[in-house]
Amino acid sequence: MLDDSLALLARTPAALDALLRGLPDRWVHHNEGGDTWTAFDIVGHLIFAEHADWMPRARMILDHGESRPFEPFDRFAQFKESQGKTLDQLLDEFALVRKENLAVLRAMNLQPADLDRRGTHPTLGSVTLAQLLSTWAVHDLTHLHQLSRVMSHQYRDAVGPWSAYLGVLHCNGRGG
Amino acid sequence: MLDDSLALLARTPAALDALLRGLPDRWVHHNEGGDTWTAFDIVGHLIFAEHADWMPRARMILDHGESRPFEPFDRFAQFKESQGKTLDQLLDEFALVRKENLAVLRAMNLQPADLDRRGTHPTLGSVTLAQLLSTWAVHDLTHLHQLSRVMSHQYRDAVGPWSAYLGVLHCNGRGG
Repeated sequence: MLDDSLALLARTPAALDALLRGLPDRWVHHNEGGDTWTAFDIVGHLIFAEHADWMPRARMILDHGESRPFEPFDRFAQFKESQGKTLDQLLDEFALVRKENLAVLRAMNLQPADLDRRGTHPTLGSVTLAQLLSTWAVHDLTHLHQLSRVMSHQYRDAVGPWSAYLGVLHCNGRGG
Repeated sequence: MLDDSLALLARTPAALDALLRGLPDRWVHHNEGGDTWTAFDIVGHLIFAEHADWMPRARMILDHGESRPFEPFDRFAQFKESQGKTLDQLLDEFALVRKENLAVLRAMNLQPADLDRRGTHPTLGSVTLAQLLSTWAVHDLTHLHQLSRVMSHQYRDAVGPWSAYLGVLHCNGRGG
């Protein structure tokens, strides 16, 4: 299962790059209204998670087990971190930091006994390293899911009566 | 808006290729249970729509206006059409047929008056060419949305308590 996660995690930056690089602003810099996120915000969030979430938490589990809870994750850090950057810069940065993290993860040569080790999530409680790494992969997918919904929202009216057939326009799976 | 649609439509094949090519079977050949679709089925569906849906319907609007309803679209054709093919073959085929269709569409040099022309959808009734072309773009996104949900489903248990935070695992926007 770790190999399956790695295969997916390695592909996400190139998939987002192929989808988003050079796209018109309509798709990249518009959200779903209010304080929701744009495609640009989503890529920034994925970058911040590479720095602050997955690998620091994996290390915390291996070094401290359940004795020290993970640092809480700032879901809004990208609004500051992405300031003044272009989408192309964020796509480059995501590809680089993901590649570095996966190289470190592979070098850890994690064994089944490592994957069963437990840490403490600040709100969810006891979790395993295997669950953390699986969540890393699904976190990519949940933001791909969000991204497709945010982009679709920009054409909500343009599709006219076809709206009834387009599941993405009726999704209530909000949030990351 | 047509330019925005074209920009997105041109990118989807490469995005799916970057995400899916070479992925383990767990992500590609498993569905959400019952008669739901796999990633492989979704790519097959996108190919069939290139042949049978968007361009034939655009031509029907331009040639016959509202006088002749579109042919109904077979949402299950891919189960026969994809038989015996590999995912890599489908990804190649999707890239090729999409490229051909967009070349034909660009060569039509559609003007605002063309985009306002109306056709008859067999169940939705009167629709414009502009709505059809916008729907083509959102159709890509709704299947990207579905794809991310189908793939996430394969890790539904593996993420443990993090399930609560992963919106994709709580999406009810079913269907294409």
